[in-house]
Amino acid sequence: MTNIKLTIQYDGTNYCGWQKQKNGISIQEKIEDAIYLVTGEEVNLIGSGRTDRGVHAQGQVANFITSSKVPPSRFKYALNSKLPEDISIVKSELVADDFHSRYDAKGKIYRYLIYNGEIRNPLYNRYAYHVPIKLDFQSMDKAKNYFLGSHDFKAFMAQGSSVKSTVRTIKGISLDQKGNLICLTIEGDGFLYNMVRIIVGTLVEVGLGKIKGDSIPHIIKSKDRKMAGHTAPAKGLCLEKVYY
Amino acid sequence: MTNIKLTIQYDGTNYCGWQKQKNGISIQEKIEDAIYLVTGEEVNLIGSGRTDRGVHAQGQVANFITSSKVPPSRFKYALNSKLPEDISIVKSELVADDFHSRYDAKGKIYRYLIYNGEIRNPLYNRYAYHVPIKLDFQSMDKAKNYFLGSHDFKAFMAQGSSVKSTVRTIKGISLDQKGNLICLTIEGDGFLYNMVRIIVGTLVEVGLGKIKGDSIPHIIKSKDRKMAGHTAPAKGLCLEKVYY
Repeated sequence: MTNIKLTIQYDGTNYCGWQKQKNGISIQEKIEDAIYLVTGEEVNLIGSGRTDRGVHAQGQVANFITSSKVPPSRFKYALNSKLPEDISIVKSELVADDFHSRYDAKGKIYRYLIYNGEIRNPLYNRYAYHVPIKLDFQSMDKAKNYFLGSHDFKAFMAQGSSVKSTVRTIKGISLDQKGNLICLTIEGDGFLYNMVRIIVGTLVEVGLGKIKGDSIPHIIKSKDRKMAGHTAPAKGLCLEKVYY
Repeated sequence: MTNIKLTIQYDGTNYCGWQKQKNGISIQEKIEDAIYLVTGEEVNLIGSGRTDRGVHAQGQVANFITSSKVPPSRFKYALNSKLPEDISIVKSELVADDFHSRYDAKGKIYRYLIYNGEIRNPLYNRYAYHVPIKLDFQSMDKAKNYFLGSHDFKAFMAQGSSVKSTVRTIKGISLDQKGNLICLTIEGDGFLYNMVRIIVGTLVEVGLGKIKGDSIPHIIKSKDRKMAGHTAPAKGLCLEKVYY
């Protein structure tokens, strides 16, 4: 038996998310189906974490146990030939028997794309959040730094989520502007449910002048979801990297 | 009667191209339908030129004559409310009665995107040509300059096209590389049918070592389509700008 680690890219537009479920086609299911076609085995593909309906990935990680004799580095070619065009395996490799995509993850990098033009741009429809009102980039850029470090991010978690601890550490956050595009890159040891999207929604409201940038420490301390901004749409979000 | 100029963006994936035709839905038809819904008039929307099935635009230009009282600058909002998400009017303005999108065009800028990674990337599937073999960027970058200036580009026109003159002037050409992405930007006074896509196919073959960069002047002089490279796929192409 060998443990194979996959690095995965996908356009999440047409899927119900990473996680297998009854009411829709998931990325996990599509890849498990491809593994079945290649190996004849019904494996349990362990992802580093769920991504929601419509969220994309450039570096999702998952692993599975197989008795197949396909050389680990060749698995990607075999799987890609069975996968639809909106899912790609960019790397397949042998890992230690006890490697676990979720438990062993040390951190993740997400990026979030905003299209800040008056009129929606069809070429960014699938991959960016359209904010038609001009955002104050400088205010957003200054405000973003309040998220750095270890905090209890309960105010930035979707209500109704259950998790042992709501403390997370943001190790890096950057905001870049190029023309009408604003890109947030955020790195953390882990993220609560909808955390990146609520951080983005909050920064957008800072950019709109609805929330004061320097009130973010107060919002964090409140641990109250209602104090933070809206949840930015899934389609702007992309899981860039999971590291171990 | 007023003459209205539109600046248009679209994702061409789901259309048979700009030009209205019987066997498919075109961008022109969609916008004419929207104009009908707004004004009650069946107009003839004159585009700056056709774009093929699957080609995108960030700055297509078209004009139409109307007796509508909608203020010219407000037309974009009225039309966008009737258009699907993959077509946007980014600007609408009053122009002189004799302005003609096609005849008056002084030049166009196209960009072409290549994804040069071993494995196809789902996030660039719709917008880039996937070339899985590593391209020699330096050779391509050097070779591109042979296209600059006025030449008879008959070798770079789809066979069977009929046109008075096959001489065109390339005013600018640049090639940029960022990670696995290679972007060609090309500006000319006009382009023959499939000309940009054949130039890209030729440069890709230079990058693959199939065509020598310094043989491009010879290919141009031959006026023989068979001497040039393949026609790169439509989906990598985007009409960036038409200027007057």
